Amino acid sequence: MKQKFNYYMPTRICFENGITKQMNDYIKGERVLIISDPFLFDNGTATRIGEGLVGKKVCYFSKIEPNPSCESVDMAAEVAREQKADCVIGLGGGSSLDVAKIVSCLVSNEGSIYDYYSGGNRTLGNRTAELICIPTTAGTGSEVTNVGVFTNKKAGIKMPMVNDEFWPDYAIIDGELTFTLPSKVTASTGMDAFCHAIEAYWNKGSIPICDMNAMGAMKLILENIKTAYDEPSNPTARGNMIVASLIAGIAFSQTRTTGIHALSFPLTTEFGASHGTACSITLPAFIRISKEEAWDKMKTLSNYLGFESIDSFADAIENLMISMEMPVRLHEIGVKEEDLSHITKVGLNAAIIQLTPAVMNEETVYALLKSIL
Amino acid sequence: MKQKFNYYMPTRICFENGITKQMNDYIKGERVLIISDPFLFDNGTATRIGEGLVGKKVCYFSKIEPNPSCESVDMAAEVAREQKADCVIGLGGGSSLDVAKIVSCLVSNEGSIYDYYSGGNRTLGNRTAELICIPTTAGTGSEVTNVGVFTNKKAGIKMPMVNDEFWPDYAIIDGELTFTLPSKVTASTGMDAFCHAIEAYWNKGSIPICDMNAMGAMKLILENIKTAYDEPSNPTARGNMIVASLIAGIAFSQTRTTGIHALSFPLTTEFGASHGTACSITLPAFIRISKEEAWDKMKTLSNYLGFESIDSFADAIENLMISMEMPVRLHEIGVKEEDLSHITKVGLNAAIIQLTPAVMNEETVYALLKSIL
Repeated sequence: MKQKFNYYMPTRICFENGITKQMNDYIKGERVLIISDPFLFDNGTATRIGEGLVGKKVCYFSKIEPNPSCESVDMAAEVAREQKADCVIGLGGGSSLDVAKIVSCLVSNEGSIYDYYSGGNRTLGNRTAELICIPTTAGTGSEVTNVGVFTNKKAGIKMPMVNDEFWPDYAIIDGELTFTLPSKVTASTGMDAFCHAIEAYWNKGSIPICDMNAMGAMKLILENIKTAYDEPSNPTARGNMIVASLIAGIAFSQTRTTGIHALSFPLTTEFGASHGTACSITLPAFIRISKEEAWDKMKTLSNYLGFESIDSFADAIENLMISMEMPVRLHEIGVKEEDLSHITKVGLNAAIIQLTPAVMNEETVYALLKSIL
Repeated sequence: MKQKFNYYMPTRICFENGITKQMNDYIKGERVLIISDPFLFDNGTATRIGEGLVGKKVCYFSKIEPNPSCESVDMAAEVAREQKADCVIGLGGGSSLDVAKIVSCLVSNEGSIYDYYSGGNRTLGNRTAELICIPTTAGTGSEVTNVGVFTNKKAGIKMPMVNDEFWPDYAIIDGELTFTLPSKVTASTGMDAFCHAIEAYWNKGSIPICDMNAMGAMKLILENIKTAYDEPSNPTARGNMIVASLIAGIAFSQTRTTGIHALSFPLTTEFGASHGTACSITLPAFIRISKEEAWDKMKTLSNYLGFESIDSFADAIENLMISMEMPVRLHEIGVKEEDLSHITKVGLNAAIIQLTPAVMNEETVYALLKSIL
């Protein structure tokens, strides 16, 4: 066991399929801002939740885009301030949740996100508005982390911002919100959650509390992802998947991620793969090399998940991905052999890659990528 | 999986063997009250920790007894108020930690504990003093719960008090503090922690996050308790045991306990068994009957812990207890056949007994007790 660790996760979690129909119990404030994306406004989810808030003044910000920009954050903060919002709800995937985190702080902190982030020199003070995060994918885990990821368009970079004010007061978990997820998104976000769990587990900074959560999350995902993919309205599978994503989120909120996430960045920004696809495409290869420095742990995990060996675990993940029509080779997302050196370099620039339980350098990362070209 | 659950555990956890030598980082306050028991003052632990708090004004309350009374709480609160303590440290087993919880609140809440508890009609308001809990046994898990147990001598009852102000700001976990535990206490407190874990796991109110923590805690305990018992200064075994107790504490802080704890109350108050002994003496019998309503879960657990069957798991626990010279039959702690009806009745009065995954009534509980007389 690790000789030293810290753990802190102060968000209140409430899980129940259908729970978002009756949210008043969780909201102390009177003036609520719901931040979400166009898809969740178009399909009526955002307004349905707003209309369920009896006796509250509710306003909406509907313009959250994938990889949200600092400009979007500032626009949403402007709305929050105008409305004197005392409760900010983030509803959606990671993007909406992340924007809600910073906007809830900007209500009581003057200025732009740029003042606090990416070169800004001010420090976020106390958040006074309540912050509630409601995930609508079973993937990001953002509802139980203190991290927001924003894109600084001026500098052309996407960067995480970590702040203890970002821990949501409540994570409200409702599997029914995922019934309408397209099967492709079910697959990719579910495998993203699996990556969170396994990267927390084999992480060089792993801690025993999170190891167990990670193992449980992986088991729940393997037992439920294919059913959720095949039967989108199956309440048990959807409930189990969104809880698994939550538990994986708790795990990696303490440890951070590793090589899989490091290599996903260029695969997303330069080859357009969705985040979950960009992560899981290297997952089987990383499972195989994790033997290098995490043999015992990976053997324990493989046994727990019901596989005879670490390699058969990797094979099973690959077959699972194929059964959900996910790419398992880099050429399927447009990567060519001449791109591998560049992807290797960008991946190695992310410090988290060194939390992988294997030697990570230009040679080994290139070889890993080559093996799944 | 359970169809509905809540989870909340906001305490910051810091683990490192030796961490209590350098505690200044965790203390914002200037005037610190350390609450502990005579044993930890006699062996110098309490004053050593106080002397390590550089630049702080430190005072002490050293009179915590087992099953702490409301009178002790009020005496300690008086000291805290006189010193204008802005940080209260509980150091010890469950008793000192529990007293520190309520005393840290009474600094900013007028009156006696009796005003807030056991018939009192006032409500505890905001705690302003910092609350830090440092366990010195690997057993209670009190450092990560919002519960304090106090004895109302006037009414002759021992009762838990639950309050969200009782969540410690920090749980500081230092395996070195347990090096001096007598082997008998290592055994009984360690088995108490095991009971916390298994009772969270098979609990009718179990939740997936806690199931995993509970499984991990049980494995750590089985792998380390005998070494900690045989080699009191083994840093790895002691570190693992105190972390296991912590993880088990997180698990049962969300679910409460079951029949084992319900039956332990009369075995402690009327037969003088230590809490850990009073719990673990019924543990193998409860493992056997847990098959009734938790067969699948118990099979999963037995496999995970490396046993061929649920019964061989129960046998192994019994043999482990015998190897640590713990009683495994009720007659060994002075219980006679004519006492069983009374113990049954008292146990059935504790509501938690109905969280056991088996039918619990006068007939079944009597039979269970009889089987281990």
